[in-house]
Amino acid sequence: MSEEQPSYKLIYFNSRGRAEHIRYILAYAGVDYIDERVPKERWPELKKSMPFGQLPVLEVDGQPIPQSNAIARYLGRKYGLAGIDEWESMLCDILVDSLGDLRQELLQFQKEEDLFKKEEKKAKFVKETIPLFLSKFEQTIGKNNGYAVGSTTTWADLVFAVALENFEQMFGPAALESYPALRSLKQRVHGIPAISEWIARRPHTNS
Amino acid sequence: MSEEQPSYKLIYFNSRGRAEHIRYILAYAGVDYIDERVPKERWPELKKSMPFGQLPVLEVDGQPIPQSNAIARYLGRKYGLAGIDEWESMLCDILVDSLGDLRQELLQFQKEEDLFKKEEKKAKFVKETIPLFLSKFEQTIGKNNGYAVGSTTTWADLVFAVALENFEQMFGPAALESYPALRSLKQRVHGIPAISEWIARRPHTNS
Repeated sequence: MSEEQPSYKLIYFNSRGRAEHIRYILAYAGVDYIDERVPKERWPELKKSMPFGQLPVLEVDGQPIPQSNAIARYLGRKYGLAGIDEWESMLCDILVDSLGDLRQELLQFQKEEDLFKKEEKKAKFVKETIPLFLSKFEQTIGKNNGYAVGSTTTWADLVFAVALENFEQMFGPAALESYPALRSLKQRVHGIPAISEWIARRPHTNS
Repeated sequence: MSEEQPSYKLIYFNSRGRAEHIRYILAYAGVDYIDERVPKERWPELKKSMPFGQLPVLEVDGQPIPQSNAIARYLGRKYGLAGIDEWESMLCDILVDSLGDLRQELLQFQKEEDLFKKEEKKAKFVKETIPLFLSKFEQTIGKNNGYAVGSTTTWADLVFAVALENFEQMFGPAALESYPALRSLKQRVHGIPAISEWIARRPHTNS
């Protein structure tokens, strides 16, 4: 590793959550970093010193950087994972933000406290929201032969691989059966040596 | 305007909403575009042909691009509004996404149907969430002498100017009294000739 490589510390909880795509990017780029996992009992105290009281935070040479997708985009650009030009960089952003919209919809039903409304929201999410988003993603990724953007691996691929893994865990291993391009993207990413090596050695967590 | 300038059509509703910062960027850059405002009665039909069924969409030489912040970031980079280097570009992203988090919190209480819970959520939003976010923003922007990032105008400034205008409209003209740096950012942006010219000629809308 060159001496100009900054020192990185990724601070998050002991889960994949909103940090795993950053870990994939760093694994893919072959960059050393400290993967700090904050125990829940330490969080209330640590929260006060974190920008906007949130995690993940990436410390770059000691400077704390919040916002998972801002971090991921920055590292993606730095390590050649943001497409071949500004247009492709934008296409990465569109897909990542659209996946973020889907995640928001998921949180909406998960957070609903009224059990009846929760079932209603879940049904709508499963029957309408998921097929709407996944079929659009499938179309795009199918056209690109299994790449989210263009014909090179981008940070959007890594974001998708993480999200699709969570998706299968949540809805069962058959959940991607109707989406062959999404499944092949996930398999391709998980087959990248640096990524499969990371998956083999990462701490086992439920989410 | 050079012949290589792409042709732009911005498609949104007749409101500022999630498109006004894009209009600010295009105004600042002095770029011609069609500002198409879709009447509500046309939306259900148009929705079917829009990527992910959402607006705003920017058509670039006829190609429809969704996701307001992906659009804004792309234009920001193209027209020299993304800071002086990749680090500053990331700082723009962090601020814009943090403002997005604040907006999400606002939507949470606005969407609450239970009136009692709504009041509770509103009180928490006004007493805790707003001061937390605005004081962080104030600190950063104060340090930069009224700039969101570094010492040049970035698309993050334009995003803030739009958001702060909405904020004052929502919480009254005194709402920014304790945040002099935020207020001065907004005044500086609104004093940029291309922006004030746009504000003077834009359609009047409530939000």
